[in-house]
Amino acid sequence: MSKEPLELSAFRRSLEEAARRVRAETPLAPSITNTVTINFVANAQLACGGSAAMVYMPDECVAIAHAGGAMYVNMGTTFPFYAESLPATAQALKALGKNWVLDPVGIGMGAIRMSVLSGFKAAPPTIVRCNASEIIALAALWGLDTGSAAQSRVKGVDSFDSVEDALPAAVAVARHTGGAVAVSGPADLVTDGRIAARCPGGSARLSLVTGGGCSLGGVMAVYAAVADPLTAAAASTLLYNLASERAAAATEGPGSFAGRFLDELFRATPAEIAAMPMTLEACP
Amino acid sequence: MSKEPLELSAFRRSLEEAARRVRAETPLAPSITNTVTINFVANAQLACGGSAAMVYMPDECVAIAHAGGAMYVNMGTTFPFYAESLPATAQALKALGKNWVLDPVGIGMGAIRMSVLSGFKAAPPTIVRCNASEIIALAALWGLDTGSAAQSRVKGVDSFDSVEDALPAAVAVARHTGGAVAVSGPADLVTDGRIAARCPGGSARLSLVTGGGCSLGGVMAVYAAVADPLTAAAASTLLYNLASERAAAATEGPGSFAGRFLDELFRATPAEIAAMPMTLEACP
Amino acid sequence: MSKEPLELSAFRRSLEEAARRVRAETPLAPSITNTVTINFVANAQLACGGSAAMVYMPDECVAIAHAGGAMYVNMGTTFPFYAESLPATAQALKALGKNWVLDPVGIGMGAIRMSVLSGFKAAPPTIVRCNASEIIALAALWGLDTGSAAQSRVKGVDSFDSVEDALPAAVAVARHTGGAVAVSGPADLVTDGRIAARCPGGSARLSLVTGGGCSLGGVMAVYAAVADPLTAAAASTLLYNLASERAAAATEGPGSFAGRFLDELFRATPAEIAAMPMTLEACP
Repeated sequence: MSKEPLELSAFRRSLEEAARRVRAETPLAPSITNTVTINFVANAQLACGGSAAMVYMPDECVAIAHAGGAMYVNMGTTFPFYAESLPATAQALKALGKNWVLDPVGIGMGAIRMSVLSGFKAAPPTIVRCNASEIIALAALWGLDTGSAAQSRVKGVDSFDSVEDALPAAVAVARHTGGAVAVSGPADLVTDGRIAARCPGGSARLSLVTGGGCSLGGVMAVYAAVADPLTAAAASTLLYNLASERAAAATEGPGSFAGRFLDELFRATPAEIAAMPMTLEACP
Repeated sequence: MSKEPLELSAFRRSLEEAARRVRAETPLAPSITNTVTINFVANAQLACGGSAAMVYMPDECVAIAHAGGAMYVNMGTTFPFYAESLPATAQALKALGKNWVLDPVGIGMGAIRMSVLSGFKAAPPTIVRCNASEIIALAALWGLDTGSAAQSRVKGVDSFDSVEDALPAAVAVARHTGGAVAVSGPADLVTDGRIAARCPGGSARLSLVTGGGCSLGGVMAVYAAVADPLTAAAASTLLYNLASERAAAATEGPGSFAGRFLDELFRATPAEIAAMPMTLEACP
Repeated sequence: MSKEPLELSAFRRSLEEAARRVRAETPLAPSITNTVTINFVANAQLACGGSAAMVYMPDECVAIAHAGGAMYVNMGTTFPFYAESLPATAQALKALGKNWVLDPVGIGMGAIRMSVLSGFKAAPPTIVRCNASEIIALAALWGLDTGSAAQSRVKGVDSFDSVEDALPAAVAVARHTGGAVAVSGPADLVTDGRIAARCPGGSARLSLVTGGGCSLGGVMAVYAAVADPLTAAAASTLLYNLASERAAAATEGPGSFAGRFLDELFRATPAEIAAMPMTLEACP
């Protein structure tokens, strides 16, 4: 690491510090999240060193936004009452000045989801965690100028665009929110609109377990309770790359992998997380 | 296999081909399913080679019915909005001519569930996956002539009837829907109303994990995206028998079994699936 | 055990008998429970020897209250329709004279939860399972005289009070309900307002898996289908201490632990459960 550019070395130190604080402080990062992976999200948050609480009702969401250090909102399975809960939560978090992570999964589908996602433009998340197709779709929904003709190709919950194709949209969204955007892919992209961190590595095995992405968003919220959005997004991404590689090396199928992956989230040390492969570049 | 009747050999070839197509095409089979086992359903769909997406809202259900190759509807935990979502989804699938799998779990209980299940008579599933008590109850609810005096004995979500007692009801439902019916039991029954396939084997350990049946329905939907209902129902059933036997042989309790079972869904080859014990008979 | 006081020896025999009956009778203990840990609750109920069914709608809840041997209500993630479902279920269970277990998780947060929890004073659970902060809050909500100035310090779903500080509240609630109260902690407390059983042991690893407490409530409901509240609460608590210790000794992280914990719930024998560390004292 001694030969790395100064900026990267300094960034790695801040990632390590964030991981240390998570372990020391057990920050509460409440979630409004889908029913498919809600258990895996909570278990990943606990395994990485945080505390979890999940709610749906508007008054509970606002109350827990006050109690938590940061919050996680995942659009996976919308309920009718989300039309009230999610805007109220975003407004509360904006007023509180707290970090929160949005996973816009399912963007493009359903009146409630689209209405809520549109409204987030004015009370924006400080981290957006998504795949390439989703960030392209979000930038388009918010009418941001990406200087790019890329069209999102969402099918169900899967991405059909490359991470590099999504760079202009990720930069535009990060500049609009003033926070960070994390785009998952073969090499993950994390950006605050100024710096683009690329994190190769991780195991494709994680995509054979439902909730790999969802739970990463929950872990980012845990980290965002103790660190700035770019640091939280990058540290969580490196942790996921580390834990998925180790779990894949130790198991032979997705069921065993899922359990072992939680073990590796639990065992990863701050120094190991901060030392994972990563490059930094200025954004275009 | 060379001594098997011609029809059985041909059927096994179609099962193997279905399994190959699932692995090659990663078909999307969206679900409207209960909150208890929704994670296990999605993980089983991914492990067997498919893609998963879960929704509740009427407009999302209809949108994803268009996007998916086939769909899965499980009645386990009903929500108020199911009164709108489920009929709309069934109508959309009928108009699209797409296969869909119904698990009528909980039949007999609750106004929403009974109203929705009654309505499915006119826009029927192409596969019904259930236990013996449930198919007897469904045939009765739909007023089908089964030539049998068997009365369903449902208690909670468990079956108290034998698979053979359920044969007339299964045949009647399959003839009404024009699709297939799969009845789980010590020897599973799969029928299209013309042929009755019996699939002995599988492990009782699967019944100690919640969602064994639910997730089989989800996997059938994945297979039904690439194969006809009888083939999809039989191939999925054999896959479950294979994976549950292997997982039970390798583990000592239900927790370890559940993880290993997903591993075995992932590892089973098309040839192994198609070679599992099965007999074919003409229906009475 | 021969040197133990007569009352403790007799109590251990009743615990062993309860565990035997669960294994022999597979009692159905339906649940209205949160979406985060609903799968883990069901799997724990199956692993310990019971049967599970989960519902939300008012008519389904009342119907399944009639079908089940005892019931479990967990307030974790409230839905709008809980305002109707939960009071109707409590009234039905009171009329039926059946045992039911309440987990008042999240107490203090949200209008639906607080209204429902207040109403339970008049149609009370026969077992309350909770942490120290929650039982202090419940006694205060019900306006019970605890002779104590202890103030609940709930933060999200975690406890910030000690089990001993919660003893007066636990005794007051048990005397009001005429049933039992189980307070989880480093040494668990189980009381019927007359006797206080303290159960040291168990592994802290269980708190790194979401649903340790939730699933214990579900298992208590299984036991409460075949035993009186105090016996059911104590037997389940000892089972959890045993299974969590064994699972922690055999695994290195929370993911592997969760699977192994279900295995150990499945493998624990009635004699082993009844022999776990426990003391009995008269309540103050």
